Amino acid sequence: MLPDRQVKVGVLGATGTVGQRFISLLANHPFFVVAALGASERSAGKPYAKAVNWKQTVPIPSAVRELVVQPCKPEHFQDCTVVFSGLDADAAGDIEAAFRAAELIVFSNAKNYRRDPHVPLIVPLVNPSHLSIIPQQRALHSPPLKKGFIVTNANCSTTGVVIPLAAMEKAFGPIESCIITTMQAISGAGYPGVASLDIVDNVVPYISGEEEKIEWETLKILGGITETDDGKKAFDMHARHPLRLSASCNRVPVIDGHTECVSVRFARRPPPSPQQVREALAAYTSDALSLGCPSAPRHTIFVHEEPDRPQPRLDRDYQNGAGVSVGRVRQCRVLDIKFVVLSNNVCIGAATSSIINAEIAIARGVIQV
Amino acid sequence: MLPDRQVKVGVLGATGTVGQRFISLLANHPFFVVAALGASERSAGKPYAKAVNWKQTVPIPSAVRELVVQPCKPEHFQDCTVVFSGLDADAAGDIEAAFRAAELIVFSNAKNYRRDPHVPLIVPLVNPSHLSIIPQQRALHSPPLKKGFIVTNANCSTTGVVIPLAAMEKAFGPIESCIITTMQAISGAGYPGVASLDIVDNVVPYISGEEEKIEWETLKILGGITETDDGKKAFDMHARHPLRLSASCNRVPVIDGHTECVSVRFARRPPPSPQQVREALAAYTSDALSLGCPSAPRHTIFVHEEPDRPQPRLDRDYQNGAGVSVGRVRQCRVLDIKFVVLSNNVCIGAATSSIINAEIAIARGVIQV
Amino acid sequence: MLPDRQVKVGVLGATGTVGQRFISLLANHPFFVVAALGASERSAGKPYAKAVNWKQTVPIPSAVRELVVQPCKPEHFQDCTVVFSGLDADAAGDIEAAFRAAELIVFSNAKNYRRDPHVPLIVPLVNPSHLSIIPQQRALHSPPLKKGFIVTNANCSTTGVVIPLAAMEKAFGPIESCIITTMQAISGAGYPGVASLDIVDNVVPYISGEEEKIEWETLKILGGITETDDGKKAFDMHARHPLRLSASCNRVPVIDGHTECVSVRFARRPPPSPQQVREALAAYTSDALSLGCPSAPRHTIFVHEEPDRPQPRLDRDYQNGAGVSVGRVRQCRVLDIKFVVLSNNVCIGAATSSIINAEIAIARGVIQV
Amino acid sequence: MLPDRQVKVGVLGATGTVGQRFISLLANHPFFVVAALGASERSAGKPYAKAVNWKQTVPIPSAVRELVVQPCKPEHFQDCTVVFSGLDADAAGDIEAAFRAAELIVFSNAKNYRRDPHVPLIVPLVNPSHLSIIPQQRALHSPPLKKGFIVTNANCSTTGVVIPLAAMEKAFGPIESCIITTMQAISGAGYPGVASLDIVDNVVPYISGEEEKIEWETLKILGGITETDDGKKAFDMHARHPLRLSASCNRVPVIDGHTECVSVRFARRPPPSPQQVREALAAYTSDALSLGCPSAPRHTIFVHEEPDRPQPRLDRDYQNGAGVSVGRVRQCRVLDIKFVVLSNNVCIGAATSSIINAEIAIARGVIQV
Repeated sequence: MLPDRQVKVGVLGATGTVGQRFISLLANHPFFVVAALGASERSAGKPYAKAVNWKQTVPIPSAVRELVVQPCKPEHFQDCTVVFSGLDADAAGDIEAAFRAAELIVFSNAKNYRRDPHVPLIVPLVNPSHLSIIPQQRALHSPPLKKGFIVTNANCSTTGVVIPLAAMEKAFGPIESCIITTMQAISGAGYPGVASLDIVDNVVPYISGEEEKIEWETLKILGGITETDDGKKAFDMHARHPLRLSASCNRVPVIDGHTECVSVRFARRPPPSPQQVREALAAYTSDALSLGCPSAPRHTIFVHEEPDRPQPRLDRDYQNGAGVSVGRVRQCRVLDIKFVVLSNNVCIGAATSSIINAEIAIARGVIQV
Repeated sequence: MLPDRQVKVGVLGATGTVGQRFISLLANHPFFVVAALGASERSAGKPYAKAVNWKQTVPIPSAVRELVVQPCKPEHFQDCTVVFSGLDADAAGDIEAAFRAAELIVFSNAKNYRRDPHVPLIVPLVNPSHLSIIPQQRALHSPPLKKGFIVTNANCSTTGVVIPLAAMEKAFGPIESCIITTMQAISGAGYPGVASLDIVDNVVPYISGEEEKIEWETLKILGGITETDDGKKAFDMHARHPLRLSASCNRVPVIDGHTECVSVRFARRPPPSPQQVREALAAYTSDALSLGCPSAPRHTIFVHEEPDRPQPRLDRDYQNGAGVSVGRVRQCRVLDIKFVVLSNNVCIGAATSSIINAEIAIARGVIQV
Repeated sequence: MLPDRQVKVGVLGATGTVGQRFISLLANHPFFVVAALGASERSAGKPYAKAVNWKQTVPIPSAVRELVVQPCKPEHFQDCTVVFSGLDADAAGDIEAAFRAAELIVFSNAKNYRRDPHVPLIVPLVNPSHLSIIPQQRALHSPPLKKGFIVTNANCSTTGVVIPLAAMEKAFGPIESCIITTMQAISGAGYPGVASLDIVDNVVPYISGEEEKIEWETLKILGGITETDDGKKAFDMHARHPLRLSASCNRVPVIDGHTECVSVRFARRPPPSPQQVREALAAYTSDALSLGCPSAPRHTIFVHEEPDRPQPRLDRDYQNGAGVSVGRVRQCRVLDIKFVVLSNNVCIGAATSSIINAEIAIARGVIQV
Repeated sequence: MLPDRQVKVGVLGATGTVGQRFISLLANHPFFVVAALGASERSAGKPYAKAVNWKQTVPIPSAVRELVVQPCKPEHFQDCTVVFSGLDADAAGDIEAAFRAAELIVFSNAKNYRRDPHVPLIVPLVNPSHLSIIPQQRALHSPPLKKGFIVTNANCSTTGVVIPLAAMEKAFGPIESCIITTMQAISGAGYPGVASLDIVDNVVPYISGEEEKIEWETLKILGGITETDDGKKAFDMHARHPLRLSASCNRVPVIDGHTECVSVRFARRPPPSPQQVREALAAYTSDALSLGCPSAPRHTIFVHEEPDRPQPRLDRDYQNGAGVSVGRVRQCRVLDIKFVVLSNNVCIGAATSSIINAEIAIARGVIQV
């Protein structure tokens, strides 16, 4: 059940790239309303419009222009039903822990808790069922928590590829190998991020830590949750059907939108045909949509028929960047099927995922509003 | 034996992108001297400087500024020991055939005869031994030829990947599978080629016919030549050790330099370690160099140790673009080894290959000068 | 009075860049509804979605996907109250004349009739009063027309600069000299337009005919209409206060949005201060807005205070690209005042102008609906 | 007289962008040889190849790879006849003063001493005569110096425009007004410099302090040196013929090469014709060339006839970036003449100017070698 009244939310890291995106996306949200903004001590105490070096292509929403930025301390966010975190990794660890310990609910885009065995790593169009770990997360906290928890969403390049992989596994059973080559947008590195001298007329065939994230996070997201004899839940990392992933990550001179070339091999023989894969991708739908989440895309995966699509500049803003676009589904002469997937790294690859995750948690009653 | 006097050469398609590059590269050649230029009827009769829309970053070589452009007919090239062809595919078929029939020697960058069973497809740093098919090419011509023949070089993206693959096969035996994702420069499409609206802030995940070229040409180049009982030679397409290749080709906003992410699986178990591969790549040397070919790179493959190299803007002009650069040699969790290779598509990927091929043919006495 | 029911419109050149933009902008229009699409014979007879190589960042509006494209002949547009022309200049001359002769009303983005002494050249936020020439345009046609006429809008780079110039003249009297240097987006050249090899990592300091357009069109737009003794109206080309303009036009690697650096000298001494100019620009409002035209921007000119704005990527989509952004208003040590203006060349610089012009003509009763 | 033996030089700020360029340019110098490298404490003590994040498109010259980086203290540079400074402005002030006080000779690319009344600001192709201030600079130092001095070269965008202005003043007498709009390359901001998110698909119409530099430095460079009754020399800032300059500076997505659109008005009436200006520019030659300076360009100003040149990507490397390219010389309807000038900001706009300045100082005996 979705709320019929406003739900107050806070944004941590509000002046950063991801924070700005949270604020832009929340500006027209049907029930979330931004009630508190947190940033570094340098910004705290200033009205948001003065504190931020705004880099979005839409103006600062008028509702937050004058909102005074707070330090990232729980006492300033007590009114917030949900806190979205766009903090950098070097700050997120301690702050998010403190917020949870103060019984606040954190939906984080930071990487710090993605590998925590009790924190769900949720791509909202794929594995919202992992919210079921939350009672255990609260119970194992010291002291045990009544309300507070942390949910993370995935790395931007993981998110793009895991959605079509999930759709394929749902239709055709386990994938056994997957080779991914990414061409990632500069906005994925934040601001100032990539120096222009490094990327104009250039490709950088390396993004620190990125390949490891794709190879590890995908297993947690696509895997299930096992239960031991003593009732403990654990993420199984796709262990029942081992999945080998190999990623090569590149930075390209594109503002927004990660393009990924993917080849997969299925366990089931014979594998599906390209046409069967196209149909399964187009038919894939998310719980987020059936739950009525307002930020969920109507089409989880748009399947292009033209040979030269998807393209980041043309397709990244489809459905406000909340879905993904797939094209060029065809046979791979080494594995089974290859295709191209495009995802908007600053929307479904970041803030939009956090927001839909929170919408799902509300719709399912994990959060009481 | 390399000549100690000038060798006259012609350039077909002299006003086009590849033709301009031939002319730039030949300007300082130790023995080739441009004696004739051929282009379309529209350009014929004009001094080269008037006929061409020169787009190189060096001025038009003074020696050709006033050279009058000829129609692409053999009679205008009778003085030329070698004719380089930078013709477009729609013109190259008939013109190159006519030149060969007129006993002229053509080194072509066009695709038209690459799949011809009697025409060698030579990447000069890989398979100059395929020149041995030439006597058969002449003999089977009707009427048989005494002197004329055609040699083609490979597609630009094929060239980049086939050089490290050849080095690996030489050191570690046959490769059995190979997945390649390219990020190709806009200059690969000629001029005007890619519309700026299609590529600024964008990636186009498709280049017509390109994946098929990589998947087919690589087999011809890396394969050997078999001889039947009646003495007929044939390219074996790597058939003794079947090699499965799968390519995904992308256009990126880079002026020059194709970057390719490659994963390979060797037939031999266990496969070599990344360090063994790095050493084998760095040690690989070409016949072109030992023959003293002046355009051959001193280092066929430069192996980078830095994690973020090679990059097209920084590395494409190393050794005048005649070698290739490899980096990020590491294990692949699906196949055996993955790496990044960068090649200069307008140099070793095009005109430089034709020129070295001609140098080799002269050094080996296939061409008498 | 704006209509309270649908007004059928046609789009000529519907498959081209400007035509696609017309169709995108009209998709959500409160009263215009696209009823007929015209394109070349090659496209005619096909459903629009098949005929067009759609390059917009929004999908083809569903209402026109299946609309069958017609040849650009008046008989196919008889139902249309207004016809928008996005035709190329080589086709626009004859076709627009034929449409007018057939008593159709044409709002054209083409350059062909801009210099016609009876055709108004209207930037909707500047000189809609020039619609008053229309009766004369009809009367002088042979045979005289009852209904048909042509209205043109200005060249994209003219439009951007003429809006702040008009605001300044309104507040401070005639401008006497103006030096303009443009940095124009590639979309201004249409598709395929500028070759990527010409503009990636580059500036082209020349756009054919562009400087002449700015220098001539500005005079017609900012000038008035004089009436001779026999009642004939004529555009006075700003002749009462001669205005010298000098433009230098450059193409830069920007997708959309023309940036122009402008210096002006006023006739009145002393000239206004920068602060006075800022206030006058911010206060400038258009008849289009007061008439309630739905496509008119709420702020005609947004005046930036930050030193580094406007920027095309950040500011071009403000108000759907219907207004302009000005920044860096400061003293010029040679003339009086200098500033930067940014306009969205594909919106207010093209299709949006035509649409607002038509809205004004309806609101003023020049067109009966 | 140029030296016939090696002259040892040092480079300050050796790991920075300008320092790297000094080292690249000096690698093949006929008599300068790099003997000492200075950088921050963080780099000091390391071999250069370990200390630097090399970003040039040529490899690190082998002669400096193993050279150990020193702190920027005079004692480490005692062997150096000349010290080139590529220091950042925040470090250059104190360090360069200390070097001069230690009787070292500094040719600096930093801005710190450009406005010093006893330090010459020399664009080598324009005003090497300003070296005559050096005896006074030494004499007024406390304590007076025997050998040490500082020479600065101009800001990159000043350098580009001042060369054609000097050529015009030489031929046609004083210029009285000049309006300049620049489109500057990202390399002008150093590394990391401009964030890619700020400049891909964008123009930034502002560079902090740049307009003031052009407007002030040009006067010092184009002005003469006056002598007071007591024999004191002073830069006259073009005061005998006041010159009003107005600059608007923009950053564009170009790697190297500043493009500037310039309009000028001459004092002399009638002004020269465009053809006269073209001839004067092409004929302009520098003392640096007649002195035999090896880094001086053979053509100081290359005058293009094609309407669309110069372009940064095509023309910036002409003559190793040591000259400038001018095109589109034509009448200006507001001032007299307008044109486009392109200069390579990292060569003649920076390190190359320092190097030629030192060559001139040696050739003229200002420095004893």
